[in-house]
Amino acid sequence: MKSTLMSFKDNTISFPELIKLKRDGGQLSPAEIGVFVHGVTSRDIQDSQIGAMLMAIWQKGMTDEETVALTREMMNSGETFKWPKEWLVIDKHSTGGVGDKVSLPLAPALAACGCKVPMISGRGLAHTGGTLDKLESICGFKVYQSVEQVKQILEDVGCCIVGQTENLVPADRVLYALRDATSTVDSQPLIISSIISKKGAEGLSALVLDVKFGRAALYKDMDSARRLAQLLINVGNKLGVKTGAVLSRMDSPVGQSVGNAVEVCEALECLKGRGSDDLKELVTTLGGHLLCMCGHSFTIESGKKEIALKLENGEALKKFEAMLVAQGVSADVAHSLCSNETDYFKHMKRAAHQTELEVPDNGAVLDIDGLALAEVLHKLGAGRTKSGEEIDHSVGAEILVKIGQQIQKGESWIRIHHNCPDLSTHYSDLQKVLVIGSRDEYSPASRVAEFIDPDYLNMS
Amino acid sequence: MKSTLMSFKDNTISFPELIKLKRDGGQLSPAEIGVFVHGVTSRDIQDSQIGAMLMAIWQKGMTDEETVALTREMMNSGETFKWPKEWLVIDKHSTGGVGDKVSLPLAPALAACGCKVPMISGRGLAHTGGTLDKLESICGFKVYQSVEQVKQILEDVGCCIVGQTENLVPADRVLYALRDATSTVDSQPLIISSIISKKGAEGLSALVLDVKFGRAALYKDMDSARRLAQLLINVGNKLGVKTGAVLSRMDSPVGQSVGNAVEVCEALECLKGRGSDDLKELVTTLGGHLLCMCGHSFTIESGKKEIALKLENGEALKKFEAMLVAQGVSADVAHSLCSNETDYFKHMKRAAHQTELEVPDNGAVLDIDGLALAEVLHKLGAGRTKSGEEIDHSVGAEILVKIGQQIQKGESWIRIHHNCPDLSTHYSDLQKVLVIGSRDEYSPASRVAEFIDPDYLNMS
Repeated sequence: MKSTLMSFKDNTISFPELIKLKRDGGQLSPAEIGVFVHGVTSRDIQDSQIGAMLMAIWQKGMTDEETVALTREMMNSGETFKWPKEWLVIDKHSTGGVGDKVSLPLAPALAACGCKVPMISGRGLAHTGGTLDKLESICGFKVYQSVEQVKQILEDVGCCIVGQTENLVPADRVLYALRDATSTVDSQPLIISSIISKKGAEGLSALVLDVKFGRAALYKDMDSARRLAQLLINVGNKLGVKTGAVLSRMDSPVGQSVGNAVEVCEALECLKGRGSDDLKELVTTLGGHLLCMCGHSFTIESGKKEIALKLENGEALKKFEAMLVAQGVSADVAHSLCSNETDYFKHMKRAAHQTELEVPDNGAVLDIDGLALAEVLHKLGAGRTKSGEEIDHSVGAEILVKIGQQIQKGESWIRIHHNCPDLSTHYSDLQKVLVIGSRDEYSPASRVAEFIDPDYLNMS
Repeated sequence: MKSTLMSFKDNTISFPELIKLKRDGGQLSPAEIGVFVHGVTSRDIQDSQIGAMLMAIWQKGMTDEETVALTREMMNSGETFKWPKEWLVIDKHSTGGVGDKVSLPLAPALAACGCKVPMISGRGLAHTGGTLDKLESICGFKVYQSVEQVKQILEDVGCCIVGQTENLVPADRVLYALRDATSTVDSQPLIISSIISKKGAEGLSALVLDVKFGRAALYKDMDSARRLAQLLINVGNKLGVKTGAVLSRMDSPVGQSVGNAVEVCEALECLKGRGSDDLKELVTTLGGHLLCMCGHSFTIESGKKEIALKLENGEALKKFEAMLVAQGVSADVAHSLCSNETDYFKHMKRAAHQTELEVPDNGAVLDIDGLALAEVLHKLGAGRTKSGEEIDHSVGAEILVKIGQQIQKGESWIRIHHNCPDLSTHYSDLQKVLVIGSRDEYSPASRVAEFIDPDYLNMS
């Protein structure tokens, strides 16, 4: 079919013909995908054509070969990081969930182990939170750092958490924004190419993916999550990044807080060796696998233990403090947040109101519905409906009970931080978040369900 | 599913949710289609979103109800014409073909019968010619006329052939341009809504559609063309325009010329009572049906005869001359073109070269491939690859033989008007246009294959 792609006048592939090929379910060659991505980066291809191509990809899918080519072309659409050979440059990526503040303790814990973590994160959308939004709760924190600054911070501190710069994977910047507008977010080749192109451009030695499944995740069941993880691992490894994945449950929120400022508080607690067990489990598991994959640790278990140690002994906290300062937070504020002081809201905006809700009945906590909670918080201003919208960092929730715990009617189960004077219109939605039943006290399932090795392809 | 269409913050339908509904194969309500069309007209909806929606419609189609709603909303997206009650306002629309200059003699012939014809035409794209391009071959002809000017010309002359103004069906202007860019031209609901919305906005009493089928038409077979015609008739009548359709063959070019200036010459010959039988057959058939549908003639046959008479007696020619003057052509030029003088190129740009090709073998003309010929002429500059491109009005072809005729090796079968010094690179493509075989002289099938009455729905 190649000859039909040549337009009459200039013998180059025309954008409408490229769209037509995918529209009709055809397979695009690497060269054709290159023309598309180059058109996106240079803005030679019209937005209407990008929208049509995204929808055609959503409808018809892409083969593994096409997905690899798309990811490679996107990765190479701008600058890519180059590092000194002796550095172990590693990173983690999560497919997004509710209450997921893992990056905040994990990046400095890995840096405390001597690794380098140039973590490029994103913003929240709909019910999913964003690491950049959380960090921006901290007065003075600057998410945008130049390539030169990132290099300097890695040299000096070892980790940074930054937003995507103009020059890094520019094709993804364009496509990511348009996918949201065109309802083409949930397309596997588009998800995979967006994630891996950015991680590929970071110049990583190893990457671990936290692929979530459950009610509050993109994929509801573990099989779909596993299939996505396998595709991500395949594409990552083909692009030269040693990639593995953890499948983790995403029904109830990670840890005990959801929002932006409140999640920073919880991350600080974790960095001080305290806080929720499930958050610590995720941090040590993801970190342990990374340390093992990059060759720093001999076993996953020894890697996990080293991460746990860095959280216990304050070394991760010191790295976090240094990272805050390197990214624009004043030394006083950073030091105060990372000291024994726990009144974190001295340095972050506090919501006008804190309202606690009462448990309506005696029983065991059977479930805490992360999606339902995130949707209420979104309405209260903690989330954005479309990219670019302002959010209210002070809005959030502290969950005061745990799944499996026995609770009594009348005690407080959640504390909502809000700025609307009347929360009562949201009471009925909030009460649906807490599911109570009669059952003895129990331990809920572990967050981490499965690990998929970079070599699973060779083993199977 | 309605409730999911309300966005969190403002309780209005969001564009991504509308796109998602169609993406997943859902049916849009008239109100939802209204939101989409209003967004297109106001440009509140982003081009990327329009592209995605067009592709979703291409992939998933639309029900008859959706198509009627889309057409109605598009028709009402701008001004619509209102006429004096006593006027019989009628029009013809063709789905596009090669050599189709029917509008040029038909509009003035209908005006000569006392009807009013506010014909809004389009430009050529790919191998399909455009009536506006043909008329612009004539020095001074202005296709853009305001609504007021159109009214005045109908009052004074009875017919005009104009381009779509800014205010008329603005939603179609946007969608039409983007369909081309996004490879979503050949989607039935988009074709139907584009055609009928414009004709509905013309405020017609009756409309006849020339739905073409064959090698050089959008639909290759008669069954597909019939299905499209039935849908067009259904939507047209639902919007209050009495609509019928002729199915006509589109394998070989209509008449003996293809191009722009050369087709004007042939149209003038037809208006002088001369020229090809198949062109005359199309003009009288389409005109006869229109005159009968609008109540001017008692029967189709008497309508056909009246049109033929107006071509014979010079009354249609007089209307054409008056229309040219009303649309900006100088009285001298218009008069010269419409006089006994036949050197039409005194008033239209003539190509630098006229090259005649020789018949390679003795035999009967079995076929003249309209699509293959149009593609060569397109390469020579007679057509455009994307909308907005300049074309060369002087490029074209006169076909010197007829299907069914016996021809001898060495005689000329085609005269190419061209401006490239060397035509020889196109010889092999051009020779494929002419299909010769051994057969006795014969008459080819009639162009007109079938007529579908406005009442076919009630009869079946």
